Amino acid sequence: MGRITARTQVVRITVGGGGDDEDAVSRRGDVLAVEEPLEIRVGGSPFTVTMRTPGHDVELAAGFLVSEGVITHGDQFASAIHCGGPGTGGQILQTGQRPGLSLMSSPGEGNTYNVLDVTLAPGTPPPDLARARRSYTTSACGVCGAASIDQVATTSAFDVAADPMVVDAALLTRLPDLLRAQQEVFQKTGGLHAAALCDAETGAPLVVREDVGRHNAVDKVIGWAVLNGRLPLAGTVLQVSGRASFELVQKAVMAGIPMLSAVSAPSSLAVELAVSSGLTLVGFVRGASMNVYAHPERVRAAVHERV
Amino acid sequence: MGRITARTQVVRITVGGGGDDEDAVSRRGDVLAVEEPLEIRVGGSPFTVTMRTPGHDVELAAGFLVSEGVITHGDQFASAIHCGGPGTGGQILQTGQRPGLSLMSSPGEGNTYNVLDVTLAPGTPPPDLARARRSYTTSACGVCGAASIDQVATTSAFDVAADPMVVDAALLTRLPDLLRAQQEVFQKTGGLHAAALCDAETGAPLVVREDVGRHNAVDKVIGWAVLNGRLPLAGTVLQVSGRASFELVQKAVMAGIPMLSAVSAPSSLAVELAVSSGLTLVGFVRGASMNVYAHPERVRAAVHERV
Repeated sequence: MGRITARTQVVRITVGGGGDDEDAVSRRGDVLAVEEPLEIRVGGSPFTVTMRTPGHDVELAAGFLVSEGVITHGDQFASAIHCGGPGTGGQILQTGQRPGLSLMSSPGEGNTYNVLDVTLAPGTPPPDLARARRSYTTSACGVCGAASIDQVATTSAFDVAADPMVVDAALLTRLPDLLRAQQEVFQKTGGLHAAALCDAETGAPLVVREDVGRHNAVDKVIGWAVLNGRLPLAGTVLQVSGRASFELVQKAVMAGIPMLSAVSAPSSLAVELAVSSGLTLVGFVRGASMNVYAHPERVRAAVHERV
Repeated sequence: MGRITARTQVVRITVGGGGDDEDAVSRRGDVLAVEEPLEIRVGGSPFTVTMRTPGHDVELAAGFLVSEGVITHGDQFASAIHCGGPGTGGQILQTGQRPGLSLMSSPGEGNTYNVLDVTLAPGTPPPDLARARRSYTTSACGVCGAASIDQVATTSAFDVAADPMVVDAALLTRLPDLLRAQQEVFQKTGGLHAAALCDAETGAPLVVREDVGRHNAVDKVIGWAVLNGRLPLAGTVLQVSGRASFELVQKAVMAGIPMLSAVSAPSSLAVELAVSSGLTLVGFVRGASMNVYAHPERVRAAVHERV
């Protein structure tokens, strides 16, 4: 199993901290967030490579497949193995919907735990690998934000616009602290993004995941959900530690999550996609305040009259 | 030319801010950082798609080509055009080493400015597009951090380990404030990463670039440098606004930058690559203090004896 944190030695310097115009210089131990590549294969064919923090790799792969529109239910995810070096068979990590099995494998000879091969259930069409490699590329010279938004609209199996969920503004102000409190690795390293899926009624976190990449943290959360048969994620809020990009809104829409709340700023394309897809996008949640960038009708404030 | 910021309307909510147990709710204008896809082509063939903030697209493409080991000098970058919709010819933006020409094109019919086609100079081998699509993927089942580090070592044209540069610790503590002061768009949006290339003697910024993606901000800086014939970037420090990932260290090494300084934490693989390639990696530069994670011999502190 991969390490999540790694110890290292640093030279700590504080300018002027040594007295008599000297700097303070010391050697000390420090803890780093681990970053390692993971290659995700589907049916033996390379699908993507991401730099991620090891752990919850099966969820990461499952969530990525949801984000790409390949699966919408855990039954479509038959199994996954961490394959080892040439000649080793690897070990089955996940069969159907069995939560808690991820990363329970024992090491094979030469296994780096950085290649995960997913087998889809019979009848589940595999991803178009050629299209996956082209990413947003079109044959014409017309890649643009509008085309990116259209792509999400045409591939999503769920309609978040139809979700009648309403969330108290006061509840939303509590989620960033809740996320931080759950971030075990960030406390040690200061180097990880996090994502939490929360119940919209109570604010209770259903699952919290961390990663050096914010898109990976969200994929791990969505992967946990799909493997537990919980899609679409109606009645939930996805709280993330950083900014809200197009990619994060896309992942929420693909999983049927009706509200994304970010501690920092959203991008223009994140707002445009949220508006067009019916997702409520909240940003700059700091202290008692927040900005609602799209579909504020789902945020309930205590006022006599709504604006 | 693409927009760098976009105006939007938000609903601002402050819980308990309305008096008498009411929340304050108002509508107000806000400014967002623009995010749009850019497809980079080389000789007409798709090379990569990145979600970026428009502006300095030619530098972004040139820097990406440096990071991927395709070019090391501006002479190898013959020209770039933003191609329009089908049937339009686009317009030449850059010919050889002419700084300041980027994004000077006028719009063609249907031009989204989101596809940039680079023409390499005769004699410059094009990138292996099949390999680019595979990213870190190997034919064997052995992708891992060590292989990623080896790949940088075998493809970099420059040896940062040989750079005798030494930088005062006091100078390094001033770079984050300097970067922030130069971040025009961040001041408006709170939503952008930034990278600055600074002279190691004086701390003076040679170039500062911003982007929704930190890797893009670094590629724009390196692209500016290669188009101005400045590689390898001996005697410089690359200051970045966020965390230090493997990818950012890789880009610095490929451009011959001997020191990377980050406001936040590095990852494990960033430190490993810095140690093995001879790059000085500084992190958590806050107030008067910093941590040096690799090759501290380039950081000069005011002490009677070095540790």
